[in-house]
Amino acid sequence: MKDTHMQECIDRCLRCYQTCFGMAMNHCLESGGKHVEPTHFRLMTACSEICRTSAHLMLMNSPHHKHLCRECAEICTECAADCERIGGMEDCVEACRACAESCLAMAA
Amino acid sequence: MKDTHMQECIDRCLRCYQTCFGMAMNHCLESGGKHVEPTHFRLMTACSEICRTSAHLMLMNSPHHKHLCRECAEICTECAADCERIGGMEDCVEACRACAESCLAMAA
Amino acid sequence: MKDTHMQECIDRCLRCYQTCFGMAMNHCLESGGKHVEPTHFRLMTACSEICRTSAHLMLMNSPHHKHLCRECAEICTECAADCERIGGMEDCVEACRACAESCLAMAA
Amino acid sequence: MKDTHMQECIDRCLRCYQTCFGMAMNHCLESGGKHVEPTHFRLMTACSEICRTSAHLMLMNSPHHKHLCRECAEICTECAADCERIGGMEDCVEACRACAESCLAMAA
Repeated sequence: MKDTHMQECIDRCLRCYQTCFGMAMNHCLESGGKHVEPTHFRLMTACSEICRTSAHLMLMNSPHHKHLCRECAEICTECAADCERIGGMEDCVEACRACAESCLAMAA
Repeated sequence: MKDTHMQECIDRCLRCYQTCFGMAMNHCLESGGKHVEPTHFRLMTACSEICRTSAHLMLMNSPHHKHLCRECAEICTECAADCERIGGMEDCVEACRACAESCLAMAA
Repeated sequence: MKDTHMQECIDRCLRCYQTCFGMAMNHCLESGGKHVEPTHFRLMTACSEICRTSAHLMLMNSPHHKHLCRECAEICTECAADCERIGGMEDCVEACRACAESCLAMAA
Repeated sequence: MKDTHMQECIDRCLRCYQTCFGMAMNHCLESGGKHVEPTHFRLMTACSEICRTSAHLMLMNSPHHKHLCRECAEICTECAADCERIGGMEDCVEACRACAESCLAMAA
């Protein structure tokens, strides 16, 4: 079985994937304006995808999960900052930060 | 926001994805024998993938989620039966059944 | 090995995935306006995802590929019509129609 | 539009994804023995997934594709070596090497 830290990291990755992808495809598309700026929208999409892939590599116990988690932490941190800049996206900011924290610990 | 039933279905799809994919790549590969029979292993892999995709379409509020959920329920039901036949895979059986139940309700 | 028709269908699915996802994340986001209408953008995203999943099930020779291909043909046909309505998206229209045609044949 | 090198790298990533995933789910499962050793099978699965994700980030023109491509090159190189060790998997070896070469160039 997965140890507790890895399972928590998987949970946070899948939570961040859900939050970023769900908000991009609903809140951002419906709000328009700066919410659909290419740079912001791509970052949210990249963030949701790397979270999904990091969870996938952890689920299979691949030794490569460490590198993916490091990259995931970096993208999540950028995404949290960009969501804060845009405003009104507290759920994303929080999910990205929680995920980045766990991913950094896994990457160590 | 998602209504309660859809959110529960997303949660069960992602739970079933995790359980099937995680058990295939760990328990099944390490146990060998009937656990790596092509038919069984492919069914677990197909199940984990359709769960991931059904969750994705629900997260984006695509009207096509209903058809995906119907197919997901069918594959999960088959996967539960096959895991029961193989034995020692109660977590999978349970996750597949819970997912199939929610997906059927979404497809209605 | 895959038979010729299935391999062609996989190729068309992955071509359609690339075209829809690539155009959504570049052409649509940069053009703005009707290109980022929620309905249109979600349809392109759903189309790229179902294409990816249909290819995945065919690659693993899952008997469930038929149902996925039927659904894929339906979404691709809708996406082609919507891209035609928006205009300036001939590559998408063409990739969606080619994919729908192959998927319908696989579903038969 | 994508420049020529990036498009070639996307093509090689999706070719490597298809070859590794298709061979794992067919040739490896049907051959059994060392083909389903956990380490080998997980490596092929991880390789197919990282290829899919690297292509995804390049398709969206995410600046993070460079890091993903670096990791992809590493996993593909490992996978090529392991497929050579197992034997009878020339298609995989070739697809992995071609993908690693393009990914290294993108990561530079």
